[in-house]
Parts: sequence; structure tokens; C-alpha cells
Amino acid sequence: MSAPAVLPRHPRLISLEGGEGAGKSTALASVRELLLRRGHEVVLTREPGGTPLAERIRTLLLDGRGAEDEPLLPETELLLMFAARAQHVAQVVRPALERGAFVVSDRFTDSSYAYQGHGRGLDPQWIAELERRAVGLRPGLTLLLDLDVREGRARTSGRDLWPDRIEREQDEFFERVRAGFRARAQAEPERFRVIDAARPPQAVAAAVAAAVADWLDAQERA
Amino acid sequence: MSAPAVLPRHPRLISLEGGEGAGKSTALASVRELLLRRGHEVVLTREPGGTPLAERIRTLLLDGRGAEDEPLLPETELLLMFAARAQHVAQVVRPALERGAFVVSDRFTDSSYAYQGHGRGLDPQWIAELERRAVGLRPGLTLLLDLDVREGRARTSGRDLWPDRIEREQDEFFERVRAGFRARAQAEPERFRVIDAARPPQAVAAAVAAAVADWLDAQERA
Ligand SMILES: Nc1ncnc2c1ncn2[C@@H]1O[C@H](COP(=O)(O)OP(=O)(O)O)[C@@H](O)[C@H]1O
Ligand SMILES: Nc1ncnc2c1ncn2[C@@H]1O[C@H](COP(=O)(O)OP(=O)(O)O)[C@@H](O)[C@H]1O
Ligand SMILES: [Mg+2]
Ligand SMILES: [Mg+2]
Repeated sequence: MSAPAVLPRHPRLISLEGGEGAGKSTALASVRELLLRRGHEVVLTREPGGTPLAERIRTLLLDGRGAEDEPLLPETELLLMFAARAQHVAQVVRPALERGAFVVSDRFTDSSYAYQGHGRGLDPQWIAELERRAVGLRPGLTLLLDLDVREGRARTSGRDLWPDRIEREQDEFFERVRAGFRARAQAEPERFRVIDAARPPQAVAAAVAAAVADWLDAQERA
Repeated sequence: MSAPAVLPRHPRLISLEGGEGAGKSTALASVRELLLRRGHEVVLTREPGGTPLAERIRTLLLDGRGAEDEPLLPETELLLMFAARAQHVAQVVRPALERGAFVVSDRFTDSSYAYQGHGRGLDPQWIAELERRAVGLRPGLTLLLDLDVREGRARTSGRDLWPDRIEREQDEFFERVRAGFRARAQAEPERFRVIDAARPPQAVAAAVAAAVADWLDAQERA
């Protein structure tokens, strides 16, 4: 295989990860503010999605409609996620990093390991192969917003009126996803900062900002 | 890796392959007629597509619209092709084969080796990995309709008014695709029958029917 076995971490790529309602999208604002205050260009983006075509793939993934009775299979879900991600990385993430901007992504490849791997039971070796071939880099810093599954559901109860295809899963599925994220954080402690997301918004925002500030300081010292 | 290194060929799965305008869709009718005459159930299908969801992926692949200026990258194209194929195989191909029907597909995995591999230059090892993981079987019989690229273009001149994203490629691209199909036929002669598709429709139809009849006779003797 021509692809490298260990993926480079890019110091200006920051991802926010965690379950439904953990506060990823909310945290994006704190990260952005801190980076701007330090004088950096910031590109905020999200997955699945982040380009017009990748957003069309996101729609396929989340509305869950083929026919009413056609399930979207785990393998199909994984391949669609990486199709969107390949497009997002090449069209948005890499160009922004190359011109010196910071890129902050609401979800990135760790979500595939957690949802399609731990959640759906697909082979993590296959996911790693797709990551090497279609992504080729990892974030320098990943903030994992860790929260009790029921608490996350309670926070998104407004969205629950029209849950998307993945939000309709059972709690056991989301428990596996949460365990998957925590296992990834344990396996790569230099990259991850685990944030206790059960605290009030201001406390979470402060923890997020502190984690990013620490990371930036360490980068500047290096 | 848990997936098998050599894929089983299914004796009732027949694929039609070849370039644009070679006569695949036309040949489908001859194959169907012959199988029905011998008393078999026949399911006709096509790729990319074949299920409602896979047809939505086909639309993404062929209309080529994200934004006007967003190219659909080769890696994204490959992953979307296999997302559609995973869904098609699990929802249509395998259930039909399991109940004893013949499945005749207008394009199948060989098209990914030819178009995304030889045409776009993606690593065939990656394609093989996707085939093992997301498809898991090969046709018992593949009819390659081999035709000069310009002749194929001339035949589809009616369609050329609104060519799809792939049909807009240059002749050199389609020459690589044609060479790719021929290389695959050479590498797996037991599976492939190469049909000279430059002859008049009736001669091609007769050659197609003869190839399928031979195959069925050999199966019955075995
Ligand atoms: N620390 C927090 N405590 C309570 N509610 C929160 C907190 N952080 C976010 N929320 C609220 O919870 C909901 C989900 O937050 P959001 O940032 O959209 O989560 P995610 O993007 O991870 O799904 C929103 O309504 C948000 O206002
Ligand atoms: N042997 C042939 N000689 C001349 N024209 C043909 C022949 N086979 C098919 N055609 C015509 O060429 C066009 C393309 O055939 P089609 O079966 O749609 O090709 P494909 O599905 O391989 O693109 C159609 O208009 C069809 O009627
Ligand atoms: Mg969110
Ligand atoms: Mg056709």
C-alpha cells in the first residue's frame, strides 16, 4: 500500500467531537473567538458536509430516504461518510491550512470510528484504511465533549420533533458511541482533551477556551 | 483483515461491461430473453443504481453538481460508486440470487476498476479492498462489449446533447477505460467473454446469446 501507516497531525486543525447534544456546535463559538483574539484566520466547518457536494451527501445520510422500506446499510453509511470527508478535506480543509488559517471542524474522522465503528460494529481496520486513503491527516487537537447520553438527549429535545436518521437510534447505540470516543481519547492522549460537558454553558466554554489556549501556548513554545 | 482474499464467483450473476455506447443496455434484452426461454427467473438491474437510495447516489455522481466550481474528486467518485454498490448488492443482488433467480447487471465492479482505476488513476489495491469489504462476490460470467471509443461516441450522439459528468470526459480517458476492461478480461479469462461490439445489432445480439448459452450449458454439465 502506498499510503502512510501513521498519519500526520496538523497543528492548525482542531476538531470538536462528542455525542448528540454534548455542546459541539456551541463550543465552536468559543474556539473561534479565542483564535480570532490571537490574530489567526479561522475557518469553521462541519462534517458530514462542509462543501456543497458534501452537504448533498449529508442529506442522503441523514434524511434516510431511499424508499420507505430501504434501510441505509452500515457499509453504505461508512462509504458515504468518507466520500463526503474526502471532498471536504481536499476542497476546504487542506486549502485553508495551506494558506495558514486554523480550521475548526464540528466533527471529523473520530466520529466515523465512534459511530460506524463502535456504534454500527464495522471493522476499525477498514475505517483506518479509508482514513489513510481518503483523508491523510489528523487534527493536532481534538476536544471531546463528554456527556451522559440521556442528558444529551434532554438538551436536544427541541430537535427531537423531527429527529434525523441517526438521531432516531436507541440509547444503547449512543452508549457505544460514547465509549468509542472515550477509548479513542485514551489511545491518543496527546491529541485529545476530554471536556466534562455536564457543567453549565459558561463552565464548558471556559474549559474549551482553556484547552485551546494551552494548546496554542504549547505550539508557540515548540 | 477478516475479508477473504479471493472472491467467490456466483454462477447466476451475469454482468455486462464496456464503454459508452458499446451496446450494454441493448444486450440486456438478449440475455433476458434467453434466460426466460430456459425457464429462469431474471432480475435486470444496473449500476450505479439499482435501489432507490443507490439511484440517488447515481444522481450525485452523474449530474456533477455541488457548486458550479466544485470538482467531484476521483476519491469521492470511487467511494460514492462503492456506497451505491454496497447498497445494491445487499438489497437487490444477494436476495435475488438467494431465491434462485438470475441477476443481469448493466455494469458492475469491473467498471470501477476500469473507470476509477485505469481511467482516473486510483490504486487498484484500494479498489480491491473496497470490493472485498463492500461487495464480496463477483459475477460468474461477464460479457465485455468491446468497441472503438469514437464509434461508441457516434452511437450515443443523441445523448451527447446533455452528456452527464462522466460522458463529458476526453477520448484519452475512454481509451484508458477500454484498455482497462481488456486487461481485466485477459487476467480472468474464465469469467469474461469479449464480444466484438462493432458488428451490426443482430450479430452482436447473436454473439451475446451464444456466449450466455455456452455458459449455461457448461453450468448444467458441471
Ligand atoms: N453546557 C450546557 N448545558 C446545558 N445546555 C447546553 C450546554 N451546551 C449546550 N447546551 C444546549 O444544548 C443543546 C445542544 O447543544 P449543541 O451545541 O447543539 O450540541 P451538539 O452540537 O453537540 O449536538 C443546545 O440547545 C445548546 O444550547
Ligand atoms: N451493434 C450496434 N450497432 C449499431 N448501433 C448499436 C448497436 N448496439 C446498440 N446500438 C445503438 O447504440 C446506442 C448505444 O447503445 P446502448 O445499448 O445504449 O449502449 P450502452 O448501454 O453500452 O451505452 C443506442 O442508440 C443503440 O440503439
Ligand atoms: Mg451540533
Ligand atoms: Mg446503457
